[in-house]
Amino acid sequence: VPPEELAVVVNTGDDFEHFGLHVSPDLDTLLYTLAGINNPTTGWGRDADTWSFMEALEEIGGATWFRLGDKDLALNVLRTHTLRSGTTLSKFTADMTKRWGIASRIIPMSNETVRTVIETELGPLDFQDYFVRRRCEPVAQSIQFRGASDAAPGAELQEIMTGGSLAAVIICPSNPYLSIDPILSVPGIRDALRRCGAPVVAVSPVVSGDSLKGPTAKIMNELGIICSATAIAQHYRGLINGLLIDTDDASLEADIANLGIAVKLSNIVMRSAEDRCTLAKTVVQFAGELGCRVK
Amino acid sequence: VPPEELAVVVNTGDDFEHFGLHVSPDLDTLLYTLAGINNPTTGWGRDADTWSFMEALEEIGGATWFRLGDKDLALNVLRTHTLRSGTTLSKFTADMTKRWGIASRIIPMSNETVRTVIETELGPLDFQDYFVRRRCEPVAQSIQFRGASDAAPGAELQEIMTGGSLAAVIICPSNPYLSIDPILSVPGIRDALRRCGAPVVAVSPVVSGDSLKGPTAKIMNELGIICSATAIAQHYRGLINGLLIDTDDASLEADIANLGIAVKLSNIVMRSAEDRCTLAKTVVQFAGELGCRVK
Repeated sequence: VPPEELAVVVNTGDDFEHFGLHVSPDLDTLLYTLAGINNPTTGWGRDADTWSFMEALEEIGGATWFRLGDKDLALNVLRTHTLRSGTTLSKFTADMTKRWGIASRIIPMSNETVRTVIETELGPLDFQDYFVRRRCEPVAQSIQFRGASDAAPGAELQEIMTGGSLAAVIICPSNPYLSIDPILSVPGIRDALRRCGAPVVAVSPVVSGDSLKGPTAKIMNELGIICSATAIAQHYRGLINGLLIDTDDASLEADIANLGIAVKLSNIVMRSAEDRCTLAKTVVQFAGELGCRVK
Repeated sequence: VPPEELAVVVNTGDDFEHFGLHVSPDLDTLLYTLAGINNPTTGWGRDADTWSFMEALEEIGGATWFRLGDKDLALNVLRTHTLRSGTTLSKFTADMTKRWGIASRIIPMSNETVRTVIETELGPLDFQDYFVRRRCEPVAQSIQFRGASDAAPGAELQEIMTGGSLAAVIICPSNPYLSIDPILSVPGIRDALRRCGAPVVAVSPVVSGDSLKGPTAKIMNELGIICSATAIAQHYRGLINGLLIDTDDASLEADIANLGIAVKLSNIVMRSAEDRCTLAKTVVQFAGELGCRVK
């Protein structure tokens, strides 16, 4: 897929106000990664960042549980200021992709405020409070997307979903509950994807009953869902045409197919750049096969 | 003077909103200086600061004419956030002095917003725009303190001025038009100082027809005022009891005395820490002499 034909729709339910700054962790991770300036060690933030701000903040008693590097801070400060001036989040994001020479489009799921809140044994927790500060330790009871009912996909996303030019929609192997559901909670997105005419394909974030990374398995258990690729298929039922699962889960193929979802087996555990590239090719090919079948 | 008996009232007319941050250059310079963490080379900002934020900001197209170091930024971000939560500027400043172990009180002239605006040939310019961005180059026509009529001294400053415990009031050798007048523009301050019972003493910022530092002489010329210690005396007439002038200006002594202002001659050019210390002692002694005379 040529990068200029790729549009990435990004979860902004993880966004939050920190020190009055509008922080967009998922958007920034993607921007930095596609700009080639991400920090590969942490998985977030910028490469070769410095920490003077955090050190000085600690000295004067500011909260330090959410780490913002000095360079990372520049994007957050400029974004906050730009949004306050009336610019939309999608416009600001587009300006940054252009500035960093990123050919793909990066589109926030909505320009309106949607906030992922985890209902836990400790009460409702904002996403970053749950995820970063408390390291996903509190037991999740349910997940809310506050503000979603008043949100809408931005004009650019609307155009992409309804313009008839989509070749495929790929749902990445992300946490369905924390990373994909926020996007699907925005009114209109789920319907538009179902009607767009392009195959919708997901990659399972679960292999052999455990998550590829992060707290997906823990959360599924807490929500009373048996963690398996089948549960992922059930979760996305009615939305996806195909699910890519790991060869280790071959035994689940029939169950998933019985849900009316096409299954493809592949190695979905990515340990290297080569693995990521292979998986990307596999999923695009899978979508192509489904697309042909649909036509 | 024991540091715990010293209260420094600080100009906040230079404060401004930059990237949505509440920046208080004069307050911070004083905080950093008394905390021993100021940058002696620049005269502003923190020692051993780093510049990753500014570099990253430049990369993404943010304005870089006002330099904020990474550590300096921490104070600005925390202040902005704290003020938005409803804390006053004087409370926040007091918290920082405590945290840095500063024994003296540092008090903003007001908790309300007063903004120094320079009317110039280019139109009205916000102070930092005039001072930093344009390096005081535009010709000044007049100076306004916007918001002053709605401002008031904070409770702590009010108490100091009217509590009857003041031994002396010292007006530092600062620019009278840009640094002292903003303070005097706050309703109540001028009257309270006149009535406080303590001698009010100023140190001339002008020697031999030129300013000790900064644009004082340039501005006086542009405003049609002949730059001299006599003009400083005329400017503070009715407020001050005494004016400390340089021995080089001995010829002006009689003119100033004729305005009803006591004059003391001294070396007021500070080239070293020793000079600063000597001048401080001289001015305190001068105030003491005047205080005795008043009683």
